[in-house]
Order: sequence, then C-alpha cells, then structure tokens
Amino acid sequence: MSHAIGMDIGGTKTLLGIIRDDGRIEAQVKMPTAPQDGFDAAVRRFSGAIRGLLGQSNLRVADLAGIGIGCPGPLNPFTGVINNDYTLPSWGGSNIVKALSGEFGIPVSLENDADAALLGEGYAGAGRGAGNLVMLTFGTGVGGAVLNNGVIYRGAAGEHPEIGHVPIDPGGPTCYCGLNGCLESLASGSAIAEAGKRAGFADSQEVFARVLAGDGRAMRILARAVRACATGLWTIIHTFLPDRLILGGGIMQEHYELFEPAMLDVIKRAKLGPSTGMQLCKATLQNDAGLVGAGFLMMQSKPASK
Amino acid sequence: MSHAIGMDIGGTKTLLGIIRDDGRIEAQVKMPTAPQDGFDAAVRRFSGAIRGLLGQSNLRVADLAGIGIGCPGPLNPFTGVINNDYTLPSWGGSNIVKALSGEFGIPVSLENDADAALLGEGYAGAGRGAGNLVMLTFGTGVGGAVLNNGVIYRGAAGEHPEIGHVPIDPGGPTCYCGLNGCLESLASGSAIAEAGKRAGFADSQEVFARVLAGDGRAMRILARAVRACATGLWTIIHTFLPDRLILGGGIMQEHYELFEPAMLDVIKRAKLGPSTGMQLCKATLQNDAGLVGAGFLMMQSKPASK
Repeated sequence: MSHAIGMDIGGTKTLLGIIRDDGRIEAQVKMPTAPQDGFDAAVRRFSGAIRGLLGQSNLRVADLAGIGIGCPGPLNPFTGVINNDYTLPSWGGSNIVKALSGEFGIPVSLENDADAALLGEGYAGAGRGAGNLVMLTFGTGVGGAVLNNGVIYRGAAGEHPEIGHVPIDPGGPTCYCGLNGCLESLASGSAIAEAGKRAGFADSQEVFARVLAGDGRAMRILARAVRACATGLWTIIHTFLPDRLILGGGIMQEHYELFEPAMLDVIKRAKLGPSTGMQLCKATLQNDAGLVGAGFLMMQSKPASK
Repeated sequence: MSHAIGMDIGGTKTLLGIIRDDGRIEAQVKMPTAPQDGFDAAVRRFSGAIRGLLGQSNLRVADLAGIGIGCPGPLNPFTGVINNDYTLPSWGGSNIVKALSGEFGIPVSLENDADAALLGEGYAGAGRGAGNLVMLTFGTGVGGAVLNNGVIYRGAAGEHPEIGHVPIDPGGPTCYCGLNGCLESLASGSAIAEAGKRAGFADSQEVFARVLAGDGRAMRILARAVRACATGLWTIIHTFLPDRLILGGGIMQEHYELFEPAMLDVIKRAKLGPSTGMQLCKATLQNDAGLVGAGFLMMQSKPASK
C-alpha cells in the first residue's frame, strides 16, 4: 500500500494530505480547525476534505493504508481520545480515531504532533538513516520527541516525554510546568519575545533583527537562549544518547546558524557521548514534517497499550 | 531452564552465583578480580568457581540457561569485548563472552554493570511490576540505567546513557565528563567526601554522621547533594518519564530518608509528569542486584546489533 492520508491538526489550522510511502506529498489542503464549531462539525469537514483529495488524485478509499493524525496533546495514542484543554478545549474527550474509522472503514492512528513531526523528519527528512534521533522544535514553546531504534519513545502509560521542560537554570523564569528556568522558559519564541519586551523590543523577530545589527541587549537575550540550548543538548546526550539531533521550528528555520556553533562545541566536549559521534542538523521538511509523519504513522507499527 | 550463572565483575572483587528464574540466589562465591594477573588467569579462576558452584548445587552445565555477566564499562554488549581503561586496564580488548562460551559451550551475555543491577531490581527487587524504570546508583560515582517497556534502553551504537552526568548547576565542580556541575560532581560519594574535606571532615561518612548531629556545615553539604538529586529527578521525569525511580548504592542504602522528601516534592510539583503518577523507592537487593540481574540477562532477549 503506497498511500496514506496524513492530518496535522493545530489549534488554528489543519493540514490534510495524501502521503506516499517515499514521503512525497501527492496532494494537500489547508483548512481552519475551527474547534469552536464542535468536534462533529470538524469531523464532517475533515471527511469532506479527504474525499476531495482522493477525487483529485484518482484514488479510492480502498487504496489507502489508513489515516494518520498528528495533534497537540494531551491525547491518548492507544484509544484515540483527545484531551487537549489548552488549544482544543471544545473537543475534550472526543475520539477522533473512532469517528474517522467509522466514516471510512480503514485503520486510523492518532499521535502527539511532536512525534508525528519526528517521524516525518526521521523517515523522509533530516533524520534519514539515524535510528536514534531526538528532535527539538522551537516555536511558541519547545517541543521534543525521541526515536529509539526507529520507534517512537514512550514513557509511563505510553505517554510522551516533555524535553522542553528539562531544568537549565534555577534563576530562570517561572514556567507552567512547575519549574523556574526550564529549556522552554529560556529558549522558546515566547521566552525570547518576553525578554525582548523588557528590553524595549516589540517581539522575538525584532530581537533577532537587532542581533544581526549588533545590538548588545539583543545579543544578551540571544546568548541566554543559546546557552540554554547548549545545556539542554548536554542533557539529551547523557539521557537519550542519540546518533543525531534535529533542530526544527520557526526559530531554527530562520536562525539555525546562530545556535549551531555552541551546540557543536557541546558535542565536542561531551567525553561520555556516543563513541560513534553525534550529528547535529536543521530540520528540512519544516511545516510539512507533521503532515508527512502523520502519513508514516500508518506505515510504522505501534506497540500495544499495556 | 530455571537456573543461570550470574557474574558481577568489579575492579576489585567479583561475585559469582547460581541464579534461579525467581531471582533467588542458590549459591554464591566472592573472589578477588585481580585484573593485574591478566585476563586469561581471571577466566581460569572464574571457570573454576563456576564448576565449584555447580558441584555444590548438584547441577550440570547442561542445566544452565547460560552465563550472564555485569561489568563496568566501556564495553560492547553485542560483541562481548571489555574496553575499560579505568578499572580493568590490563584486560583491554579481551572478549569474555568468547572465552567463557568456549569454555562451557553455553550462551554467554555481557552487559554494563548498571544495566545488570537495573535488571536485578527490575525483575526481582524494588522495580517489580514497573515496565518503565530508572535506577540511579549513588556510590563513588553516580550510575544510571533505564528500563523502557521492560527492555534496557540503549542509545547510539547500542551504548549506555550516562545519567549521572546530566547538567545540574554550572557553578558546580569540574567533572571528567567535561562539564562543571553534573549530578555526579554534586551528589556522588566522592563529591560529598571532597566537600566534606574542605569543611574539615574526614570523609563522606563523617559528613552524614555530622548531619545527624545537626552540624550546619555538614547540612549545607548534604543540602547541595539533595538539591542536585531533586534537579536530576526533574530531568528524568521530563526525559525518560518512568513509572518508578529506584535509588540505590551505598549512600541511599544508608541515608535514603534524607533524600526522599525533596524527591517526593519534585514528583508532586511536576505537572507534565506521568498522568498515572510516579513512584519513588529504595533499592532492595543492594549488593546482590548486579549478581541477580546478570543471571536475568540469560532470561531476557537482547536486540540484535545494528
């Protein structure tokens, strides 16, 4: 079976596409998620879009390996229930796997969006060829996902580790995770924007623009974020011990080269890191990673719930 | 097959025992490792001891599932080669799996000693019933090992993560790992002893004795170690996300209750920890964990090398 539907659901917009098993996107459509209209209405719109994609590609439902869905958590990848009180509150407790498999009669799989993006980069992007992979995504927050021996890492209850909240600097800002100075509180887009505002800048974009112009205040804000990433990398090396770290998200898409030297220095200094070396790279699929990875969910086996 | 030989090799002494598949030690012997006499001499002594154990237990070689070995790394669990330049330098490059399987004609398996101890606690001790387990061992250094879904976690090249070297406090002591202020540099027996010496105490034992007597300097040294452990636990929750953390090693065997309250507080505060909760407990097998776990190596499948 060489095609699957991939869905990348966000709080604002949703991407749907037909994904081939070589990672290529055959056709795709973007639509508002509109969670406020309720879950049933969303399922009707998603179903219509899937039928539209099939029509324009001359494919039938029977040609699909299934429907893979990446969605911001909390969610239960084993049951299909979405419990995201933050960005999808009106969907609370809805079962999207049940709804779409009922509609189409084919396998449907749900996964945390960070894990879906990791699968996309892992199988069709910057992670190709690495079996032990960590991806950090720097956007509004800092997301993380881990591939161990080619399989998504799951902890207690099959849940997703939150690498964005590892401790970095006890003197750092307070985070909703319960800690002061986690990685997200120091290196996320929001963290850079907030520090920027205190220094008189409009947002994180202005901070980066002022860095490139050589502004000292902006460079101190950046330096704090870079140091936090370097410390976070030390943590990743001594916990998950990956072959490769992928840096993704809007900040890295634009400014990877500002972070790279400090990160490479950490890899060089870590004597107890992988004896075979470790690679650092920038995500390549960017906004498509989640969509492509969602398609790959249907081409990767998922362990049974315990 | 209900019996296996377990071997727990240390730089100074080696434990050998007959381990039953319920985790009980049927018979055991302790001998000097004497690495300075060379590898071949050690294999001869180990082989003699194994035959002695079999004789006293009325077992034959054919009754054994195999020989499982825990040994301080670096080592290669897939090939059986020991490359420990620190505590077993004269054995460098020797293949203990080849030597003992040649001698006895049964399966032999080699593993990092921290992983062997984790298997022991995991299957027959404090970890029973938890599929996602992290064990930290506080002795001269700080060792760590991870069970994920019942299987030992391996990173790049099948190697072992070094959780004892996660970053804690950039103002901390310099460690051989390349970082200032890793967990080991702040909370190991050596770290406590060194801080104790600067405060006029003889060793780590005196530091703990003075803590119990209410000495302020000793309590500050302890507080630093406890804070480091609490931060390390925050890291573990947001990376490996285990069901249970086991604290082992000499320091925890004696003083677990001094560390427990701060650790439980971290578990309570970590909002993004496992939704099903997380347990903290003290190792129960103590010095036998490595020996018992080595036996269990022969009862757990090991993934093939890649």
